[in-house]
Amino acid sequence: MSGSDQSTMTKRAGVLAKNAYGKSKVRLTKVTRLKDRHILKEISVAVQLQGDFAATYDVGDNSQVVATDSMKNTVYVLASKHPLDTIESFGVDMVDHYLKTYKQISGVTVRIVEELWHRIVHDGKAHAHSFYGAGAEKRVAEIEGTRQSVVVKSGIEGLKLVKTAGSEFWGFVRDENTTLADTKDRIFGTSVSVEWLYQNARPDYQAAYDGVRNAILECFASHHSLAVQHTMYEIGQLALERVPDISEISLVMPNEHRIPFNLQPFNLENKNEIFVTTDEPYGLISATLKRS
Amino acid sequence: MSGSDQSTMTKRAGVLAKNAYGKSKVRLTKVTRLKDRHILKEISVAVQLQGDFAATYDVGDNSQVVATDSMKNTVYVLASKHPLDTIESFGVDMVDHYLKTYKQISGVTVRIVEELWHRIVHDGKAHAHSFYGAGAEKRVAEIEGTRQSVVVKSGIEGLKLVKTAGSEFWGFVRDENTTLADTKDRIFGTSVSVEWLYQNARPDYQAAYDGVRNAILECFASHHSLAVQHTMYEIGQLALERVPDISEISLVMPNEHRIPFNLQPFNLENKNEIFVTTDEPYGLISATLKRS
Amino acid sequence: MSGSDQSTMTKRAGVLAKNAYGKSKVRLTKVTRLKDRHILKEISVAVQLQGDFAATYDVGDNSQVVATDSMKNTVYVLASKHPLDTIESFGVDMVDHYLKTYKQISGVTVRIVEELWHRIVHDGKAHAHSFYGAGAEKRVAEIEGTRQSVVVKSGIEGLKLVKTAGSEFWGFVRDENTTLADTKDRIFGTSVSVEWLYQNARPDYQAAYDGVRNAILECFASHHSLAVQHTMYEIGQLALERVPDISEISLVMPNEHRIPFNLQPFNLENKNEIFVTTDEPYGLISATLKRS
Amino acid sequence: MSGSDQSTMTKRAGVLAKNAYGKSKVRLTKVTRLKDRHILKEISVAVQLQGDFAATYDVGDNSQVVATDSMKNTVYVLASKHPLDTIESFGVDMVDHYLKTYKQISGVTVRIVEELWHRIVHDGKAHAHSFYGAGAEKRVAEIEGTRQSVVVKSGIEGLKLVKTAGSEFWGFVRDENTTLADTKDRIFGTSVSVEWLYQNARPDYQAAYDGVRNAILECFASHHSLAVQHTMYEIGQLALERVPDISEISLVMPNEHRIPFNLQPFNLENKNEIFVTTDEPYGLISATLKRS
Repeated sequence: MSGSDQSTMTKRAGVLAKNAYGKSKVRLTKVTRLKDRHILKEISVAVQLQGDFAATYDVGDNSQVVATDSMKNTVYVLASKHPLDTIESFGVDMVDHYLKTYKQISGVTVRIVEELWHRIVHDGKAHAHSFYGAGAEKRVAEIEGTRQSVVVKSGIEGLKLVKTAGSEFWGFVRDENTTLADTKDRIFGTSVSVEWLYQNARPDYQAAYDGVRNAILECFASHHSLAVQHTMYEIGQLALERVPDISEISLVMPNEHRIPFNLQPFNLENKNEIFVTTDEPYGLISATLKRS
Repeated sequence: MSGSDQSTMTKRAGVLAKNAYGKSKVRLTKVTRLKDRHILKEISVAVQLQGDFAATYDVGDNSQVVATDSMKNTVYVLASKHPLDTIESFGVDMVDHYLKTYKQISGVTVRIVEELWHRIVHDGKAHAHSFYGAGAEKRVAEIEGTRQSVVVKSGIEGLKLVKTAGSEFWGFVRDENTTLADTKDRIFGTSVSVEWLYQNARPDYQAAYDGVRNAILECFASHHSLAVQHTMYEIGQLALERVPDISEISLVMPNEHRIPFNLQPFNLENKNEIFVTTDEPYGLISATLKRS
Repeated sequence: MSGSDQSTMTKRAGVLAKNAYGKSKVRLTKVTRLKDRHILKEISVAVQLQGDFAATYDVGDNSQVVATDSMKNTVYVLASKHPLDTIESFGVDMVDHYLKTYKQISGVTVRIVEELWHRIVHDGKAHAHSFYGAGAEKRVAEIEGTRQSVVVKSGIEGLKLVKTAGSEFWGFVRDENTTLADTKDRIFGTSVSVEWLYQNARPDYQAAYDGVRNAILECFASHHSLAVQHTMYEIGQLALERVPDISEISLVMPNEHRIPFNLQPFNLENKNEIFVTTDEPYGLISATLKRS
Repeated sequence: MSGSDQSTMTKRAGVLAKNAYGKSKVRLTKVTRLKDRHILKEISVAVQLQGDFAATYDVGDNSQVVATDSMKNTVYVLASKHPLDTIESFGVDMVDHYLKTYKQISGVTVRIVEELWHRIVHDGKAHAHSFYGAGAEKRVAEIEGTRQSVVVKSGIEGLKLVKTAGSEFWGFVRDENTTLADTKDRIFGTSVSVEWLYQNARPDYQAAYDGVRNAILECFASHHSLAVQHTMYEIGQLALERVPDISEISLVMPNEHRIPFNLQPFNLENKNEIFVTTDEPYGLISATLKRS
């Protein structure tokens, strides 16, 4: 247990098979002060590095280690030089910076979560510098770069949706562990997480984000759902139709159950009106659609 | 420690000075199915009762105790009969129910938190039965009733706001524990909690809610702020001016600091653009304004 | 809405009835480096001030305002001079500091939450400088001081407890909204929050904390419970008996229900073994006992 | 968008590349009532199924779908028949159940999180049926089964640790984005997450858990650390040495920084005693060691 001495001289039980390190929750607000209005961006950045770092694990030799504190500084330094127009372009720049600057680094993963701020509207006009927060919903991006390639993933997390009609669930497996009744009219509540990949080298990240988000809202509202899977699939298809830059889309949707409350013991009828809102247990459904 | 025997026969060290009990986080979704559209309400209810319950504490005699499970049932039963137009009117009905039904109850407090769901807009039209969630912001109400009176408090929690101009902070006490610099241009970020009381017996709860919420947004956006306190006070004044039903308003606003990141070590200038977003520590400012 | 001009010259709708401000979540770790071992304290401090601060609300005049940033500094400065033996004594010092230093302050409330760290035991010996964290359970103190008096409250939050025998609940009100069955053998799960006041000017804070915590554990384990109220009352009595410094004790205990899972549809019997663990809804029971 | 008709008849933009679904947060408490004492287990189960489910996505045909509600029932049914001695053995049984019962299922992943309850000790004796909760720390297991193989992973999450001596960090890359000073004496605070794989078909899960947990505590306390990576590696080595059943171990350790507070502006010296406790940003370090 005495560390470096022992570890270099005796045969150890294990070998280092994988390693990575970095800094998480580097939170940044950038205000771009245009003449007629301010642009507000608030992001949280996580960076992970892979590369030639075995010596720090093995003997505590940190000579190849970029300190995570320096990684934090780098987020702010790079953000001061970058327009932060999209989190994707900022992430690509950051990956590029690490691969160009440090030869010991073989791979970089940058994950960015963006808080969504909307302009306060007053007297029918969007305010120049005052904003309200969207809350649970976030825009996200993950950029993975190596010496060979850079892959950009974009996404949305926490988009809460409920529809009170147009959702059925019946005809599923009925066996000894089944107690759920068939239903032709249930509440469908969820919180959409979605991620997509690009097929073009220079996609329009903002248009893709807008296109996917609209496809989710439109399809969720109008699709007649026979299962969460069914609607999720339609959302994926619509997104691929609408956004040509996307090559692949992955959706994860919890089924946040609203359970009809049994009013019979109280001599009342529940006309599909009164439900227990639940967080747990919850269904969890996922799918990946690739462009065919 | 052997419970009931000992407690009735020997002099105990203490006497029961206060007691209350109830059920919290009773979560309910109600769908009102109108011809042309559905109305969706999602609430979480907490009920607390006070009254003649000493025997359950003292000797475990539960004969006067309304089980908290029954209190849960009651929320769903009453909601099936109530339009749930406002959480205030529902809370008043629930308080009324307990005081009328059980003579051992001297006081009832009902607190209701409402999730905010907005209609999905598609092709310029608000959808009839599909909704997205507002996230962090909630509408709240607390109704306290006794044999003598019922007091209704209404409120908003978690309304996240940021303004990137029109906020100063200077001229404060400067002494040996002060290191903060004066500033004529800072970011002002907060998450407003507000509660108000009514001066009329039959106020328009919905109009009060709309009026206060608009006053907050408008004043936050347009007021030139010399301190969080200063803006909070103006919000309170504007709400009292705009909403005649209100007698008193209390605001709590954290100061969610965005701290300029020091770029000098990197030979860069921070032109009031790059900030560290922080959660803690945070300022916490409060005020109550009464109608004069 | 134009702020200071208007507010001083016209009659406003409201008057400032109450105000307070301060800093929350000031987090501090102190290591006291003794010869043979280190003492580790980790606390989170919230300070709120009341006093002559109307001008900052009314016209943005901050000349009487101690900046919350300075309040943050003060926590670290005072902690560097104080042994931090108990959070109560540190809080009393901080209240004292504010009242002595600033004549515009009429009242100070300091709330301190202490993370609990225990020494790692290895080869039967408590380690000199290595610790593991207790998790959810915290020690808390709240000190309220004015020009007239200082009141110290101590407490424990988040002490999670479960007993699987010795808990009944029956004989409660049975009416049209009741569906719960009587039970002579239920699981009793809770998370105790407790606060107490002192009757002596110089109490032994550490002994009081140890005495109350032991009373909770002993009484919860051994008391035959006929209701959450019943056990809570016995805990309060035992604490008052054991800890002479205490004048009053308040307990809040959620009833974190474990609901027997109905195995009948699966042709199985549930011999009081299989339960659904739930977070919501939950019972919430409270009591205050004063020394008689 | 009209769902089933369209989707079967026209060429769609995408094809379903991956899919899975299941139930999460199925929470269960089991009490095993032995003669002399009770055994308390509290777990949260998540199940995910993969297989021949394309029809539910494509056209809403649920005939192959095991409802997630039935999956919830199955957890309770299986737990009533299983001793729940370890979460690993329970998870293996559950995977087995799904693969044996439903031929449309090709893969099952079961993840179980166990709350840790310890017996209350009173008068030097562990109580027979009363327990207190460990809080943040959990025991976890993940079992992945296909028609070909079953892989068991075991783990620990949220084991909070701090050491106030024996931790250095220096000699790292120093360049234009570096501002962190070298240190020979820093606080090392973390919250360990660890997962391991087995090399034997019938490992002793409980012994492995105990062995790894002890290795973490012992190594963290006694290792002289030159980096988080350095200590993490030693923990991995010690675990592999001590627990022969393990083939591979992965550790993730955040660096939860305690930052020395600068007391110079207040004419005080910080003798490495006063620190700002921070949650964000945080370092995040990981490693996988394979048996060599």
